[in-house]
Amino acid sequence: MLDIPKIHPRYRSLVTRRQLAEYAACGVVSLEGLISHGRGEAFDYLIGEKTPTTALESEMLAACVLLAAKHPVLSINGNTAALASAEIAVLQKASGAEVEVNLFHRTRERMKNVATVLEAAGVVVSQGPVERCVPLPHDRGLCRPDGIGSADVVLVPLEDGDRCEALVGMGKIVITVDLNPLDRTSKMATIPIIDEVTRALPNIATECRRIKEAGEHPRMPTSFDGKYFLKGAVTAISETFVHALD
Amino acid sequence: MLDIPKIHPRYRSLVTRRQLAEYAACGVVSLEGLISHGRGEAFDYLIGEKTPTTALESEMLAACVLLAAKHPVLSINGNTAALASAEIAVLQKASGAEVEVNLFHRTRERMKNVATVLEAAGVVVSQGPVERCVPLPHDRGLCRPDGIGSADVVLVPLEDGDRCEALVGMGKIVITVDLNPLDRTSKMATIPIIDEVTRALPNIATECRRIKEAGEHPRMPTSFDGKYFLKGAVTAISETFVHALD
Repeated sequence: MLDIPKIHPRYRSLVTRRQLAEYAACGVVSLEGLISHGRGEAFDYLIGEKTPTTALESEMLAACVLLAAKHPVLSINGNTAALASAEIAVLQKASGAEVEVNLFHRTRERMKNVATVLEAAGVVVSQGPVERCVPLPHDRGLCRPDGIGSADVVLVPLEDGDRCEALVGMGKIVITVDLNPLDRTSKMATIPIIDEVTRALPNIATECRRIKEAGEHPRMPTSFDGKYFLKGAVTAISETFVHALD
Repeated sequence: MLDIPKIHPRYRSLVTRRQLAEYAACGVVSLEGLISHGRGEAFDYLIGEKTPTTALESEMLAACVLLAAKHPVLSINGNTAALASAEIAVLQKASGAEVEVNLFHRTRERMKNVATVLEAAGVVVSQGPVERCVPLPHDRGLCRPDGIGSADVVLVPLEDGDRCEALVGMGKIVITVDLNPLDRTSKMATIPIIDEVTRALPNIATECRRIKEAGEHPRMPTSFDGKYFLKGAVTAISETFVHALD
């Protein structure tokens, strides 16, 4: 493997890429997942590789909703596990949410590999029989009836638009983490978080801890304005382009 | 491999992803190449997944320059071969350009695999001894002295910024195909084509055929305004955002 010099202006991004490529080689990340990561990278570049103000607001709302939920579940796929297993462990502890593995490219082996990566980072992974609870074709509708199937709030980082829409259609509050504000995932979500996953999850966890330490008892909001968060991200991206070629 | 439901709104993109993943599995595309494809996908989405007007202008100029060249070469890497081998064959025929394989992650095996994919699509691949003609470290400077080394015009789709800059520094006219108008590749190129490779190459080929059928004899322009094409792409992207959330 090529050495990456620490002074390289894109050091962090190159290290993340290598990390994902290694997870692909050992069957945690799918090859398609590498492509998805590249797509996210482009949008992170465009929002300036930092958390926009409105994204932080969405993360604080997400914390409130996770704590107000009766049965919150974090739905984790290969890319999220590869990028952010430590952050998932921290968020699980702070929010009390259940963690369930759910893969677009689902095989028994990858389900096991992803769970292993999560457990090595200290995540408690809920396992058990699955059924087609989500109205989607093939294996993509499978989940645990007493997990995602009966959750009132689901946090689904790096999710597919179809699945996000199906979960919303089941009446669940769906929190997404996706860098593209124009993606169907972001547009369909109840609370779209337009931020990079390793920045978003710790921000949510920090707010969960703050709420609990302050002794607050958050109540579930009765309505949500997802579009507000999308607009904030679009503004951040537009600013990147305004002076791009000056 | 999982079936992709045809009703999926991103069916075409998902099929392309699978195609690239399969080429990665058989050693044509590198794992890093998969991530690069994802970045390109994001920018294609932003320019509206169609050829912007200024991109078509750049493609017509590229055709003119390829036909006016003394020794035009198409420099092809793994991603370009995997995505567009048929389009390369058509462009080679229309432009009379030589085709040389050139890889960022160069191994003897991948060189052979990429050439095999191209030849299966009808491309005539120039092969022979290589030397370090391009001033770049490691294997990245290698090319055929009587190929890219002595070309006056080089078309390099999906190229790295470093290599683009080095080729320009050698006094060559460099035509790039890259979806990010803010990328160093696009900024360094003599003629930056900001378009998806399977749309760009056929457009260039069509214009080559039109020029030849009309009996025109294109002359090499004496100056180029690459920034014009970058601005056109930035405008196209901005337009995507203006009404994105209406």
